[in-house]
Amino acid sequence: MRTLGVKALALCVVAAVAAFAAGGDGAEAGGHGGISSFLFGLVAILLAAKIGGELFERMDQPAVLGELLFGVLMGNAGLFGFHAFDALKTDAGLAIAAEVGVILLLFEVGLESNVDELLAVGRSAMLVAFLGIVAPIALGYGVSAFFLPESTAWYVHLFVGATLAATSVGITARVLKDLHKMDTKEARIILGAAVVDDVLGLVILAVVSGLVKSIDSGGGMSLLPVLTIIGKAAAFLVVGVVAGRVFARRMLRIGSRAKTAGMPIVLSAAFCFSMAALAETIGLAAIVGAFTAGLVLDDTFYSGYREMRSRKIEEALFPLGAIFVPVFFVLMGIGVDLRSFGSLSVLRFACGLSVAAVIGKQICSLGILEKGVNRWAVGVGMIPRGEVGLIFAGIGASLSVGGEPVFTPQIFSAMVVMVMVTTLATPPLLKKLFSK
Amino acid sequence: MRTLGVKALALCVVAAVAAFAAGGDGAEAGGHGGISSFLFGLVAILLAAKIGGELFERMDQPAVLGELLFGVLMGNAGLFGFHAFDALKTDAGLAIAAEVGVILLLFEVGLESNVDELLAVGRSAMLVAFLGIVAPIALGYGVSAFFLPESTAWYVHLFVGATLAATSVGITARVLKDLHKMDTKEARIILGAAVVDDVLGLVILAVVSGLVKSIDSGGGMSLLPVLTIIGKAAAFLVVGVVAGRVFARRMLRIGSRAKTAGMPIVLSAAFCFSMAALAETIGLAAIVGAFTAGLVLDDTFYSGYREMRSRKIEEALFPLGAIFVPVFFVLMGIGVDLRSFGSLSVLRFACGLSVAAVIGKQICSLGILEKGVNRWAVGVGMIPRGEVGLIFAGIGASLSVGGEPVFTPQIFSAMVVMVMVTTLATPPLLKKLFSK
Repeated sequence: MRTLGVKALALCVVAAVAAFAAGGDGAEAGGHGGISSFLFGLVAILLAAKIGGELFERMDQPAVLGELLFGVLMGNAGLFGFHAFDALKTDAGLAIAAEVGVILLLFEVGLESNVDELLAVGRSAMLVAFLGIVAPIALGYGVSAFFLPESTAWYVHLFVGATLAATSVGITARVLKDLHKMDTKEARIILGAAVVDDVLGLVILAVVSGLVKSIDSGGGMSLLPVLTIIGKAAAFLVVGVVAGRVFARRMLRIGSRAKTAGMPIVLSAAFCFSMAALAETIGLAAIVGAFTAGLVLDDTFYSGYREMRSRKIEEALFPLGAIFVPVFFVLMGIGVDLRSFGSLSVLRFACGLSVAAVIGKQICSLGILEKGVNRWAVGVGMIPRGEVGLIFAGIGASLSVGGEPVFTPQIFSAMVVMVMVTTLATPPLLKKLFSK
Repeated sequence: MRTLGVKALALCVVAAVAAFAAGGDGAEAGGHGGISSFLFGLVAILLAAKIGGELFERMDQPAVLGELLFGVLMGNAGLFGFHAFDALKTDAGLAIAAEVGVILLLFEVGLESNVDELLAVGRSAMLVAFLGIVAPIALGYGVSAFFLPESTAWYVHLFVGATLAATSVGITARVLKDLHKMDTKEARIILGAAVVDDVLGLVILAVVSGLVKSIDSGGGMSLLPVLTIIGKAAAFLVVGVVAGRVFARRMLRIGSRAKTAGMPIVLSAAFCFSMAALAETIGLAAIVGAFTAGLVLDDTFYSGYREMRSRKIEEALFPLGAIFVPVFFVLMGIGVDLRSFGSLSVLRFACGLSVAAVIGKQICSLGILEKGVNRWAVGVGMIPRGEVGLIFAGIGASLSVGGEPVFTPQIFSAMVVMVMVTTLATPPLLKKLFSK
């Protein structure tokens, strides 16, 4: 059995590398239109995801950790002179596929969730989200003030804190889904808090960015953009759930009278994509829209379809997720640059940040009002900063005051390491906490 | 029932337009990363496909014709001052989704086909393909010489003929699939001939382009590139079928020992994408590779998977096709520019070309050696020029001799009209011929 696994691994790796080498060749050869580099990249990512996921599953670890780490290997193969995978980092098609992947994942998570159950833990989720923002900001400010040179401006510390406040729910959602723990109270609190967190995170980002910009230009700060964001987000969530439910039910009822095949799948996907795009349009994360879309759809909406009698919509959409979801996680791993670990002072700061990041989200578990809830599990579930943390850090690096960037390359690298540590450490911890 | 259909239509159109208008707005607003314009475009295309397909199905016409025509409507709404859909024409993500769609379609068609049955009609398919190349070239040359000014060079006529020789199998494959006629002798001959046609078409394109280039530079013509193309294509088809079968069987057997879910779907899709990319890399169409991949995979390869016991791989992959295949056809319709119909002299030439295009492919049915085969059905199945014709015409417009383009804008427009006519006329004709 063991030798077979190794043989399989070798065969697939050879295939992936061969496919990719051929792809590089194809880019020169040209061909008809030029979809081959996208396809070869997709194949390499899918094989890496399946091999990595399978290996880690056999070591009793979450599959998503294997997908992430195999992505890290591919993304950093260039350090060892192997540059075949470098093109994956900049392929626009793969970036879209990855976004579609995380959208489908949160849609599936939404489908498995339920508005009433979510509202039942609503107050806890709100408190958890609130504490999960305040505590990391305070701790991040402290760590930043401790590690960075004394000459560093206070708004840099504040921006470090704000970046620590970000939460990326993708990893946690995936682990809970793989463990079939989506219907636990812990999972509901985490998901509810994640939605609130996304809104609060946007507000924080708007406030801090506005502050930095106004310091740079020497002017004051207006409250209006902050209120606008809060208003838009609240409107989206309320209108999305209420009007979305009415619209989706009607749309699916009309669709059930159609003669063409595939109606429930296409309509459900279209609803998910619309909500994701709408969320992004008003400034929220696309995944919040996708989650809301999943939340809104109900099994009863599909009762008119003969093809849906023997299976649920989650099952019908499974193949889409199977192809796209791993792309997100492998590509997230590919984006990790191991050279960030190169400098000792950066590493020291990164360690401090990571500890603050973990503790900050543990504090948020104090917000849980329910009894019998595993507080550690909720706290750990909130740890990953993932792509949201990277977005915050990227904005920090792009803003400047008086010509000086808010995040120097060193601060940015430390942030990236913190994101990596929190993202990679969570799956095994979560698995341990939920397996008990 | 009728009023309900109209209500459904109205509701969906409003939704699509609203979604799209919101998308346009979102492009300005910015948002997180910017996947919303892709998602809104995808939603608009999916809704148009489903509404168009359903309407035409109810009028007893093939769904794909509805998808094409609704695409034409969207692509030309700008003529009536409605420009919301214009962005769809240039969205790189949608173009990739469309290519993935036609790749998945030909993969599914390949899965429903069988090597032995295809080889059984091999000689007919070869003859059909050969006649289907020679006859349109001769007729196209004649029509071009008749309609175009006397001063036109002979190689222009030849290039017109070569463009008429192109075949696009996507439309026919889709209609036959929708009619559940993939297992007829006619379908097998068409598919076999389409594969041969793709290879021969490449050879013709290489010869004619080489000829024009050498006339432009005043030099001679080498036979080597032509032989290289033939050699590569033959090698791909033989090696792809023989080695691909061994590789796919082994890969799927190893995959069946995995613990992670979704293995058969991911491995099959990865195999399809690899073969498509390989085909494109060596200069063939990606869909030839996808078709070959489907041909190679056999239901017995999946016997080790518990999740595949109750269903075939075609069914497992259905949701992927349901989302992506319509994107190809709607986007093909969107690419049609109705302004080509504006000039009378262009229209006259286009009429001549269309007649030559139809007759040319009817002649090819003389190559059928089997008895009891509906020759009309095969001839009609070979008519659509689709995207392949557009590619040929585009190359004709891009080449020039002594600074003069081989295809003037007028010739190019007439070619586009011919492609439209042959592509749009085929689905209803095929449906009629196969329904008897």
